[in-house]
Amino acid sequence: MADPAGKATNHGYALARQLFDIRGDDLHVGGLAVREIVSRIGSPAYIYDGGGMRRAYRRLAAALDGFASIYYSVKANPARSVIRLFVEEGAGVEIASLGEYRAAIAAGAAPGRILFAGPGKRRAELEAVIEGGIGEIHIEGLDEIERIRAIGKRVHASIRINPVPDVQVGAMRMGGKATAFGFDEEDLDAAIAAVTAAPNIDLAGIHVYGGTQILDAEALIGGWRHAIDLASRVARTTGRPLRTVDLGGGLGIPYYANDKPLDLDAVAAAVPELTARMRAEPLLADARAIVEPGRFLTGEAGLYVSEINALKTSRGVRFLVLDGGMNHHLAASGNLGQVIKRNYPVVAPARMTAEPDQPATVVGPLCTPLDTLARDTGLPELRAGDLVAVLQSGAYGLTASPVNFLSHPQPAEALVEEGKIETIDRFRSMDVLPNREET
Amino acid sequence: MADPAGKATNHGYALARQLFDIRGDDLHVGGLAVREIVSRIGSPAYIYDGGGMRRAYRRLAAALDGFASIYYSVKANPARSVIRLFVEEGAGVEIASLGEYRAAIAAGAAPGRILFAGPGKRRAELEAVIEGGIGEIHIEGLDEIERIRAIGKRVHASIRINPVPDVQVGAMRMGGKATAFGFDEEDLDAAIAAVTAAPNIDLAGIHVYGGTQILDAEALIGGWRHAIDLASRVARTTGRPLRTVDLGGGLGIPYYANDKPLDLDAVAAAVPELTARMRAEPLLADARAIVEPGRFLTGEAGLYVSEINALKTSRGVRFLVLDGGMNHHLAASGNLGQVIKRNYPVVAPARMTAEPDQPATVVGPLCTPLDTLARDTGLPELRAGDLVAVLQSGAYGLTASPVNFLSHPQPAEALVEEGKIETIDRFRSMDVLPNREET
Repeated sequence: MADPAGKATNHGYALARQLFDIRGDDLHVGGLAVREIVSRIGSPAYIYDGGGMRRAYRRLAAALDGFASIYYSVKANPARSVIRLFVEEGAGVEIASLGEYRAAIAAGAAPGRILFAGPGKRRAELEAVIEGGIGEIHIEGLDEIERIRAIGKRVHASIRINPVPDVQVGAMRMGGKATAFGFDEEDLDAAIAAVTAAPNIDLAGIHVYGGTQILDAEALIGGWRHAIDLASRVARTTGRPLRTVDLGGGLGIPYYANDKPLDLDAVAAAVPELTARMRAEPLLADARAIVEPGRFLTGEAGLYVSEINALKTSRGVRFLVLDGGMNHHLAASGNLGQVIKRNYPVVAPARMTAEPDQPATVVGPLCTPLDTLARDTGLPELRAGDLVAVLQSGAYGLTASPVNFLSHPQPAEALVEEGKIETIDRFRSMDVLPNREET
Repeated sequence: MADPAGKATNHGYALARQLFDIRGDDLHVGGLAVREIVSRIGSPAYIYDGGGMRRAYRRLAAALDGFASIYYSVKANPARSVIRLFVEEGAGVEIASLGEYRAAIAAGAAPGRILFAGPGKRRAELEAVIEGGIGEIHIEGLDEIERIRAIGKRVHASIRINPVPDVQVGAMRMGGKATAFGFDEEDLDAAIAAVTAAPNIDLAGIHVYGGTQILDAEALIGGWRHAIDLASRVARTTGRPLRTVDLGGGLGIPYYANDKPLDLDAVAAAVPELTARMRAEPLLADARAIVEPGRFLTGEAGLYVSEINALKTSRGVRFLVLDGGMNHHLAASGNLGQVIKRNYPVVAPARMTAEPDQPATVVGPLCTPLDTLARDTGLPELRAGDLVAVLQSGAYGLTASPVNFLSHPQPAEALVEEGKIETIDRFRSMDVLPNREET
């Protein structure tokens, strides 16, 4: 982007200063210079700031002040080291596949602190998690009730509800419209009847997921109020107390210039009212609220870093060609649901004191113009071998990307905390699952 | 889509009848029912029709009638069995990474019949392919000339040229605008000077890539004419004959309703004129034209097949929830560069005689509304366990998809020909590369 005076601008630098330490020319993550981390683990690389993830967790927990338990939504970043960190912090874990269940167990999660949501749960998946132990299964449709019934073992389950349109919030609406997720609010009574008719299902509560990447605290809180009201309705319909009210996730982080961070003070300010709303219904008196953020806990604490492979100028545009691009970071290329392509924040992590005022278009090595990570942003003068970092890359990064596209090497991946680098080996973890699950 | 009478329509059925055999209720690929193949290799699965790939190759070779050699562009589908099939047919191989080079060699390609294109070639990649043997390297920028010069061994190289805007063609323009690919036509003389100054580079020819997914034969031929003219200019500038004129790929296939297939008869009709254009320049008298299609050779011969996991109706919309979705097939979800989401052709491959007149929205199992493979298309009445197939999935399918997203199992993959199933094991092939290449 160019400012009115024609100079290149870049919102990444202010964000980097806010999220990380800068010492001399170097951006530091987890007590080490990015340059140093890359010299040890290789480039391209995803680098996660363990301390930053803990800070995000603790800020949210402080704002919620006991009103709701936090369950880490594994889909945002299923690296075991990341899951383990949140388990250490006291989080439960929300999973959406058997692969994520295995990752959560391997990371030390107690089975009773795992929630299983997601449409299209296969029978083999349901059998495996019920056999291994699971806190709650969030039921998305009538088929699942039948499958769980057929398995026969006793389980706690919640009903996932797709709320009516007027409470929809957030950038990407997941409810209100027709959806494959959960039961429509209009069909709630039928869902309750089906669940309570299954002899091995204990109805534990409800799950309402109203949106994703929500930056507006009032919208988030409005969705939570509606979820509490729905929980009251379910409890009154069954005449039995609920144990859990899952308010969903959807807590956003700022990606683009002019995005404002979610106001946690506003969330904290709403907690007394939300608590009172829960307590006003006797059948919810012992219920526990749950929020299940993923992006909010990990997104800001992650960087994708790559060396510059080549520089070139074409028809007046300065291109920086990196060793990795959309094959490692699909979201930053604008190909993960974005309609309008906007730049993720990028910085030169070993040139933090140089003025980022030279226009640059940052691309990856793939043979396609889709492989563009940032268009016309501002970066300092750089050379081949210099590093470029994409910020806000800790969620929906590597595992949401087509890593085999063009058959380039996998990026390295590491969690860094207090000067220690813990490398993540995805190929020894859950990602390489066989085609058929053992059933 | 609904027709004016309100009935659901689906362009997939006509296409399936044209591309494959239908016997009874069953779509047959490579002499076997899709249902039978899936019962043996599992679901979800990518199934490739070996005979269909050979037919596409032979049709194109017949249309080109000796005017141009065909090099298979590995990025479209890097499965070794697929590369081997085209090598057997007589194709050369166009690669864009060391991983693709290794796949081509493993598939039996002669090193001298491999072309290496792509921006951002790493020094280690250049060293490895030069050491192993390579037909030509297509030079994308000045940095590459320096790297090849530093390696020192003698190589054949072509100059990749980004043509001027008025010859741009195709749905996704790769030239004309500012680009990271090749040298701008305006800067050609500087590129020629730099290449000819490198003592170990033999200037073999040029490479012009004007677009991708081109369905308009006249546009394709117009681009080829311009490439021949550029080759003449380069040859006259150096005063030396060229060996190759790489016309690029970009040959499209019909994906969406109303897409018309590329008219190979029109291509064939232009061959005498194109040949004469080449021969009119004495320095091109012995030059060989090259086309390097990927999608055109493999796209129509591939299906992505998944069982239906669950069915549900939400607010009047019938959803079919499959076991796999955008994690296996990003392009079909509309998240690989498409601005307007349109439906890939889908069919029920074991219910081919049932009327496909029931509106259906086909989604995958991921917890995101992005995971939608077809909106409001027509399919027959179907049940959980029935199969759905996405056609036109042989190119930019599995390797262009975020397979680890949500940690679901990998799909099976097989090449089927004359009743024989050859399964493809990507995890024993080039896809699992270490982060650092041995240099």
